[in-house]
Amino acid sequence: MTGGVFLSFEGIDGSGKSTQARTLANALRGLGRDVVLTREPGGSPGAEEIRALVLQGDPDRWSAETEILLFTAARRDHLERTIQPALERGAVVICDRFADSTRVYQGLSRGDLRDTVDQLHTLMIGREPDITILIDMDPEIGLSRALSRRGAEERFEDFGADLQRAMRKGFLALAAGAPDRFRVIDGTGTTDEVFSRLQADLPELFTTGPTAA
Amino acid sequence: MTGGVFLSFEGIDGSGKSTQARTLANALRGLGRDVVLTREPGGSPGAEEIRALVLQGDPDRWSAETEILLFTAARRDHLERTIQPALERGAVVICDRFADSTRVYQGLSRGDLRDTVDQLHTLMIGREPDITILIDMDPEIGLSRALSRRGAEERFEDFGADLQRAMRKGFLALAAGAPDRFRVIDGTGTTDEVFSRLQADLPELFTTGPTAA
Ligand SMILES: Nc1ncnc2c1ncn2[C@@H]1O[C@H](COP(=O)(O)OP(=O)(O)OP(=O)(O)O)[C@@H](O)[C@H]1O
Ligand SMILES: Nc1ncnc2c1ncn2[C@@H]1O[C@H](COP(=O)(O)OP(=O)(O)OP(=O)(O)O)[C@@H](O)[C@H]1O
Ligand SMILES: [Mg+2]
Ligand SMILES: [Mg+2]
Repeated sequence: MTGGVFLSFEGIDGSGKSTQARTLANALRGLGRDVVLTREPGGSPGAEEIRALVLQGDPDRWSAETEILLFTAARRDHLERTIQPALERGAVVICDRFADSTRVYQGLSRGDLRDTVDQLHTLMIGREPDITILIDMDPEIGLSRALSRRGAEERFEDFGADLQRAMRKGFLALAAGAPDRFRVIDGTGTTDEVFSRLQADLPELFTTGPTAA
Repeated sequence: MTGGVFLSFEGIDGSGKSTQARTLANALRGLGRDVVLTREPGGSPGAEEIRALVLQGDPDRWSAETEILLFTAARRDHLERTIQPALERGAVVICDRFADSTRVYQGLSRGDLRDTVDQLHTLMIGREPDITILIDMDPEIGLSRALSRRGAEERFEDFGADLQRAMRKGFLALAAGAPDRFRVIDGTGTTDEVFSRLQADLPELFTTGPTAA
C-alpha cells in the first residue's frame, strides 16, 4: 500500500486503542513506512490548548453546544496542522480516537445533539478516516483495565458500566452504518493476540510498496 | 416597551458603537429599565477566555475556519450565559457588536467563508438581535477616531482606509438585506447629535411601560 492513509482507532474506554495504535505504528515503521501517531482530543499545539480550556474548571463551565464547537475547532486545527500535511507527504496517519468518539459520547449524553454534531462535522471537518479500527469488547473488561490507570482528566471517563455498555452499542451501530470504513476487531486476549487479529483483518496495511523502500 | 429586548450596535472601527451603546444604556437606566451592556468578542467569562486564546500569539496561529469555530463557541457561551438570562428576566440587552461584525469581517477577508459563517450561525446560534443599530459614516472619520486610541489587541483593526470602505459597504448591504431588523444611523457630528438621531429613530425604546416602574 502506498500513499497517505488515514486510520483511526475507536472503542470504549480501556479497550486497548492506545496500545494497539502504538503497536501498529511501530510495526509499520519497521516496514519503512512514514507513520504519524496522533490522538484526539488534541493532536496539534492549538488543539491541545483548546482541549486544556475545555477540560479545566468545573463540569458545568461549558454547555454541551459550546463544548461541541470547541472540540470541532480543536479537530479542525488537528486536521489542518497535523493530519493533512502528513497525508500529503504520503504518511500513514494513525489517530487514537477521531470524530466517531464525539458522535458516540454526545449521542449518549444528549441524543438531541447527535444531528448537530454530524452537521458541524460535514460543514467544518468534511472528511472521515480511510479506515476506522473499532476495538470491540465486553465493557467489564475495558472498565477494569481503565480503572487500573486513571489519570487527572477524567471528565469523560467518570462513567459506570451501564454507560460503557451503551457506548459499545453506539460504536457497533456506527460500524454497521459504515461497513466500508470500519473494521471491527475483538479486543479480548493479550496485546499480541489482538494485534494478530488486526494484522489478519488489514493485510493491505502490511504489504510493502515503493514508498517502503 | 416592556419585556426583554436584544439590541446590537454595528459599524466600522471608530464609528462610535461603544460610545453610543454606553449612552443608550445610561439613558434607559435613567428611565428605570434593567439594562445589560455587553460586547463581542467576549461578553461572558468563558467567551473572554476563548477570545484571549484566539488573539494571543501570531496571526497564523489559527486558520480562518478554526477561528470562526472559536468565535462561534464564544458567541454561544455569551448568548447562553449573559444574553438569554437577561432577556428572560425582561432586561434590555445592548450588545456592542454581534454576528454581523463576523459576517462583514469574514466576508471581506475570505469571501468563500461567508456561507460557512451563516450556516454555523443558523446551526449553533440560531437567533439575531431584535434591533441592530448600524452607525454609518465616512470611513476616514471613523479611522481618524480609531487611530487616536489604539490598544493592544489590534488583529482586526490593523487595516487601512480601503478595508474600512469595504466594511462600510458590507454593513450597508447587510442592512439592506434585513430592513426590519436594522436601523441605519448617521454617525457624524457630536456624540449628542448622533444620540439624538438614535432617539428619533427608535422612539419605542424610550416609552416607559409597566417594567419601568
Ligand atoms: N490486550 C490487553 N490485555 C490486558 N491489558 C491491556 C491490553 N491492552 C491494553 N491493556 C492495558 O489496559 C489499559 C488500557 O489500555 P489502553 O490505554 O491501550 O486503552 P484505551 O482504549 O486507549 O483506553 P482509553 O479509552 O482510556 O484511552 C492499559 O493499562 C493497558 O496497558
Ligand atoms: N461623535 C463623536 N465625535 C467625536 N469623537 C467620537 C464620537 N463618538 C466617539 N468618539 C470617539 O471616537 C473614538 C471611537 O469611538 P468608539 O470607541 O465609541 O467607537 P467604536 O465604534 O466602538 O470603535 P471600535 O470599532 O474600535 O470599537 C473614541 O475615542 C471616542 O471617544
Ligand atoms: Mg487511550
Ligand atoms: Mg468599540
